[in-house]
Amino acid sequence: MIEENIFQERPIPTCGKGLGPSDDGATLGEVPALGWRLLDEDLSLPVAVLDGARIEHNLRWMQDFIDRYGVKLAPHGKTTMSPALFQRQLAAGAWGITLATAPQVQAAYRHGVRRVLMANQLVGRGNMAIVSRLLRDTGFTFYCVVDSAANVDQLGEFFAAQGQRLNVLIELGVAGGRTGVRDLSQEEAVLQALHRWPQSLALRGIEVYEGVLKEATGIRAFLRRAVGRLKALARVEAFAPGPVLLSGAGSAWFDVVAEEFCGIDLDRPLEVVLRPGCYLSHDVGIYRAAETRIHAENPVARAMQTSLLPALQVWAYVQSLPEPGLAIVGLGKRDAAFDAGLPQPASHFRPGHDTLPRPAGAWQVSTMMDQHAFLRIDPADDLAVGDMIAFDISHPCLTFDKWRQLAVLDDDYRVVELVETFF
Amino acid sequence: MIEENIFQERPIPTCGKGLGPSDDGATLGEVPALGWRLLDEDLSLPVAVLDGARIEHNLRWMQDFIDRYGVKLAPHGKTTMSPALFQRQLAAGAWGITLATAPQVQAAYRHGVRRVLMANQLVGRGNMAIVSRLLRDTGFTFYCVVDSAANVDQLGEFFAAQGQRLNVLIELGVAGGRTGVRDLSQEEAVLQALHRWPQSLALRGIEVYEGVLKEATGIRAFLRRAVGRLKALARVEAFAPGPVLLSGAGSAWFDVVAEEFCGIDLDRPLEVVLRPGCYLSHDVGIYRAAETRIHAENPVARAMQTSLLPALQVWAYVQSLPEPGLAIVGLGKRDAAFDAGLPQPASHFRPGHDTLPRPAGAWQVSTMMDQHAFLRIDPADDLAVGDMIAFDISHPCLTFDKWRQLAVLDDDYRVVELVETFF
Repeated sequence: MIEENIFQERPIPTCGKGLGPSDDGATLGEVPALGWRLLDEDLSLPVAVLDGARIEHNLRWMQDFIDRYGVKLAPHGKTTMSPALFQRQLAAGAWGITLATAPQVQAAYRHGVRRVLMANQLVGRGNMAIVSRLLRDTGFTFYCVVDSAANVDQLGEFFAAQGQRLNVLIELGVAGGRTGVRDLSQEEAVLQALHRWPQSLALRGIEVYEGVLKEATGIRAFLRRAVGRLKALARVEAFAPGPVLLSGAGSAWFDVVAEEFCGIDLDRPLEVVLRPGCYLSHDVGIYRAAETRIHAENPVARAMQTSLLPALQVWAYVQSLPEPGLAIVGLGKRDAAFDAGLPQPASHFRPGHDTLPRPAGAWQVSTMMDQHAFLRIDPADDLAVGDMIAFDISHPCLTFDKWRQLAVLDDDYRVVELVETFF
Repeated sequence: MIEENIFQERPIPTCGKGLGPSDDGATLGEVPALGWRLLDEDLSLPVAVLDGARIEHNLRWMQDFIDRYGVKLAPHGKTTMSPALFQRQLAAGAWGITLATAPQVQAAYRHGVRRVLMANQLVGRGNMAIVSRLLRDTGFTFYCVVDSAANVDQLGEFFAAQGQRLNVLIELGVAGGRTGVRDLSQEEAVLQALHRWPQSLALRGIEVYEGVLKEATGIRAFLRRAVGRLKALARVEAFAPGPVLLSGAGSAWFDVVAEEFCGIDLDRPLEVVLRPGCYLSHDVGIYRAAETRIHAENPVARAMQTSLLPALQVWAYVQSLPEPGLAIVGLGKRDAAFDAGLPQPASHFRPGHDTLPRPAGAWQVSTMMDQHAFLRIDPADDLAVGDMIAFDISHPCLTFDKWRQLAVLDDDYRVVELVETFF
């Protein structure tokens, strides 16, 4: 378990964005005492904020969902890259943290994470060296995926030279997809390569990322193929001794993966590990759309009666109203994702006038530049320079990575915590 | 002038991406002694690298160009947000640094920058408070722009309460553009508001950002309008005593701005300040296209006989070759800009086999995900898992901001410096 005080004792950044005033040397643990309040304009805008209560809700929702299927959760940490949030995910019951790259694994390890599934190939000497250094801690458990004999041989040779043994999962992929073996002949080549490195590589299971597919039928077929290959490889004793891993699930199809991967009888210990990452902040774009489908189709999600809640917003000022129908807002491509739908105005607050935010008008971001957004409004709308607008976002991964710290707010818009990110 | 040792004494980050191995507590000043060499795979890939010699060339090229026009350079620091690079720009002769937001100004100030043009409106109490704190240092010179009476009144009231006086420039804008007063009646409203705050606001000049326009005729007309308004306001003594500022120029039209803004006779001291930012790294996309035009049209640039050189690349590994004609590369939307053209393969290196990179094949990035790129290749191409590919990029601003540090390479691909960024 991660010690909470490793976050509390770090200094408050002194030149980041979205911060309020603090003395040099003040620590993150002192943030609540500073009394920063968003609606009192204590923070520099734009600022990315997390709704503390909603984060807590989403955290428990997903762990509950996963528990109901009797599977395990390794939240994809690449979404937030925030070890303070990893800590909460682990404390809520997560089996481990999923990550995408060796530096991400290192950042998580340095903040206390001790079980990592890297749902990606480990390629290149510099990256292998990072993992190798972490593996000197025998309390650190690590898995990565392989999909080519070439990579297997590179890993085998590198870790043999270190006198270390690396846990790997075979990644299955689909035609037109991303990584992963496409067919039995590619799988066989990987298996043969693994046989060359019995001392330095341990085959622990099978991994898929179904999110490259876009409809349920194809996804179920892919997942069933994975289960079939898992059973076949178990039969021929291809896996190293110990529990076998079967892992899948991004943030859009975790329900289908849970359905397909639960209850598998393998005649030996099996750990089914799901890896959604975006549930923690959720969004009002691609993942709200995914959740609508989940609630329509998945009986367990429906029985839970509650849903994931969008918990991440970016607040920004109206900076200029240069023409009728146009507001320029201090929110740019450097502040929010713009690749899967532009930020959506959610609420509107006039400092010194309003006591609480009111719903935003039917405004639309039409263009984003590096540091500005063009907001189309009705010329009759009551909008003024200096007004604050809260934007909901689509695609949390590419919003989190715009921020080195995010402010966690309570229901009174007070900053109760700054969570740092390590991208 | 910035002290160089404030950069040298900072610790090497221990969990960032694109780094080589170092002991905890090692400093940036020790980086050259670590002997990291890109082609020896000492670094974790993906890594963003700057070609040290080309950066130096571009630095001198732009200062030379600016000097030939007898104007001043305030490089837009938002591009790199790297104070170590600001230091070099100032040492090469820059008048100051341009920035876009109050936190950016603070980051620059904290690293020694003492003259800043914020080419943006200063909006909101949190942002005004940042600037106000910096202005307590009377050695700090700061300008920002205004385009509305509302903002002028907000600034006037805030800085009056602090007993401080803020330098402002009126921003002119164009119909369909971004910020800036569109016409004389808007300008007049701003001027009238300024009259309400003579103690706390000082009108110092005029600012434009011509980059919202896309062709030379309209840009020249806009620039001439700015010169006309500058003269008219000078005639009626609208400006505070002291030198008057006239500022324009992004990274695409600085030649036209130099032509239009040089040699103005105002009957009082005038500082013409140009603000290109992307010249330092340049690119092979939008800014190479801009430079082709500049060399075709601008006699001073032609007379210089040399051009800006692309100096920023992102290197990544081939991670998987799952299907004929497709390579999956460990380079994602989190590593390089993707909004103005996708990264372009420039060279190719096989570790342990090649001694130097060779030109990349006619490969094309077709899709980028958060952490991956899909590279379309010829099935017959000699590409292997573990090969390194150097990608040229388009749009440096949205590439720099993906990195907390970039590696500066010498001609032997050795890391001679890590430059940190403060986004």
